[in-house]
Amino acid sequence: MTELARKALLPAGLQDVLPVVAAQEAQIREKLMASFALAGYDRVKTPLVEFEESLLEGAAPELAKQTFRLMDPVSHRMMGVRSDMTPQVGRIAATRLKDDPRPLRLAYSGDVLRIQGTQLRPERQFAQVGAELIGVSSAAADTEIVLLALEALENVGMPDVSVDLNLPTLPTRLFEAFSVSPDDREKLTQALERRDVAAIKAANGPVTDVLVTLLEAAGPASTALPRLKRLELPLGASEDLHRLVEVAERILASDLDAALTIDPVEMAGFRYQTGVSFTIFGKHVRGELGRGGRYRAGGASGEAATGMSLFMDTVLRGLDAPVAAPRVYLPLGVAQREARKLRHDGHVTIAALEGAAEAKTADAARKEAERMGCDFIYLDGRVQPLDA
Amino acid sequence: MTELARKALLPAGLQDVLPVVAAQEAQIREKLMASFALAGYDRVKTPLVEFEESLLEGAAPELAKQTFRLMDPVSHRMMGVRSDMTPQVGRIAATRLKDDPRPLRLAYSGDVLRIQGTQLRPERQFAQVGAELIGVSSAAADTEIVLLALEALENVGMPDVSVDLNLPTLPTRLFEAFSVSPDDREKLTQALERRDVAAIKAANGPVTDVLVTLLEAAGPASTALPRLKRLELPLGASEDLHRLVEVAERILASDLDAALTIDPVEMAGFRYQTGVSFTIFGKHVRGELGRGGRYRAGGASGEAATGMSLFMDTVLRGLDAPVAAPRVYLPLGVAQREARKLRHDGHVTIAALEGAAEAKTADAARKEAERMGCDFIYLDGRVQPLDA
Repeated sequence: MTELARKALLPAGLQDVLPVVAAQEAQIREKLMASFALAGYDRVKTPLVEFEESLLEGAAPELAKQTFRLMDPVSHRMMGVRSDMTPQVGRIAATRLKDDPRPLRLAYSGDVLRIQGTQLRPERQFAQVGAELIGVSSAAADTEIVLLALEALENVGMPDVSVDLNLPTLPTRLFEAFSVSPDDREKLTQALERRDVAAIKAANGPVTDVLVTLLEAAGPASTALPRLKRLELPLGASEDLHRLVEVAERILASDLDAALTIDPVEMAGFRYQTGVSFTIFGKHVRGELGRGGRYRAGGASGEAATGMSLFMDTVLRGLDAPVAAPRVYLPLGVAQREARKLRHDGHVTIAALEGAAEAKTADAARKEAERMGCDFIYLDGRVQPLDA
Repeated sequence: MTELARKALLPAGLQDVLPVVAAQEAQIREKLMASFALAGYDRVKTPLVEFEESLLEGAAPELAKQTFRLMDPVSHRMMGVRSDMTPQVGRIAATRLKDDPRPLRLAYSGDVLRIQGTQLRPERQFAQVGAELIGVSSAAADTEIVLLALEALENVGMPDVSVDLNLPTLPTRLFEAFSVSPDDREKLTQALERRDVAAIKAANGPVTDVLVTLLEAAGPASTALPRLKRLELPLGASEDLHRLVEVAERILASDLDAALTIDPVEMAGFRYQTGVSFTIFGKHVRGELGRGGRYRAGGASGEAATGMSLFMDTVLRGLDAPVAAPRVYLPLGVAQREARKLRHDGHVTIAALEGAAEAKTADAARKEAERMGCDFIYLDGRVQPLDA
């Protein structure tokens, strides 16, 4: 490895974001956050690290395994680097904002760090932009969060968005209702994850027919809804499925331009959801644009909540590549006052610097402007195209 | 400690940023970054962690002591959490952007983490917003960075800004020129840090008069400049002082509305600067708004560079407290399409949610709007003041 390559090397799953892309990421992030703010979601900012105990309180065991630990020399207690911001926002809701009226609407954006990437998401640092609706358990709340994600994506010009509605807790409810043995639960869960109908049928218990029907009902809302509405499920599972159907119908009744699919037994990627959940896709984008769903804010005994995160890396992949703003070269001798006026009018200026390139003639200045990647030059008190 | 207090507890120097303030921080950060972008400073984003070796390459030993370490289970190498972003930007300039034309102008924003706070800055996580000008060593470059910071602060409405120009390397140059012994250097450095003229005079060597004159020359540019221009210093030190004087005169010749002071022997807080440096203050703000100066990008053998960081916590302290945007309550039954139209027109909406508060009459909706902190209500197809 050359010295240069060695210096440039970053740990796997970490990266430098370079000009134009970094600006686009910030711009899209702020636009998404602006959409959340307009819907009454107040921005909070959580710390990069906090005590392990509070960071992981009520969090899924998977999250604990994904969290980097640091010893705090001040308190001599263990801290964790945030690997997800939703539990932190739940903590803020349960403590500092406990007296704020409910429903509490909060939004956040920031980078999280994970110990290992996944095959689908090799990044170990990625930027989340999210919103949480805390203190309401109704279908109206489930729907608001889905529509909020869709509206925000529409506002940044994301094309061809689709939503997949899921019920990641449904299999467990069915296992309980049908008294499925722990061994069979394990086998059936794996079969569901592989969408392996043959393996499910091989398990051959009373739950089998239901699971196969649910698997086969998955698809566009127009075909899935009638099938799911005909299904009779045991208590518990039945209520969950009714809720899923209600949320789907509410989303369809809104006039947002997104395709809706329903896959009731999809569980992959949901870690702490306790009810109606969803994944958002872009037609030509690898990986999901975002995901969310119902959970308990601050752990199992916490408030009813629903929320979602959008992932900046996939969101950016779904949008047109960024274009650099045109630049105006300012030759030596342009007064600070003039330069500031140009910037005030929205021009991106690249000022000549003594000591960098001493372009004393207009021709030399044009050459220097070109070398510096400018499209315009400020000459005779006017912004002129460089190729004029 | 109650259960609630325990849950709310964060490690010393770390904090949750709550609604309104978090939104203001983001807004001001993006405005500062927009000012940098208009002056041709391209945004980059650096990773939260990277290999210790590259993170600390060429960094001051003080920075190494302030950096949290993490073991990377993927590479089995030690990583560090960024405690300053300038060295990371220097690394990007020296590697990924090595072929970009110079001068290279880069900007960044992000949070850094330090192992311990200082008395002046107890925070261990704080947000930096900065700009680096890489590949030029001229006084014009020194001046551009100072003026860029002032222009950005002016654009966010910061009142009563002042700049203190410093030469943190000057004492060392003088110690070398006058062959001061290591013991005396230590004593004199401490005396300079305390601004203790008596202690400096007690050292009683040929360097004493010069140091006292420099200390006493410190003050507003109008009085300091004539004094400093009269001073005759040994080679090396003399060139540095000439540069300081030239930069001061260039700043005065610009028409930016900031007070300029000069304190050539101020060293506190400069860790890696190698030439003209500066600290920015707000008249009524505790702590500095920002600081910067000349250094080598990517360590001692790197490119000539100058840059600065603004600190979001002090910047926000210098601005008016944020005010929440007025909110419009949308009673039950407002169509999604209508709600979206209101947000599109810039209204912050708070939608009633079935399951949260079932306000079926206009009077009940007004009460609910008030409870939710709204100023307006959407009734009969119009946004109306709540107290109408």
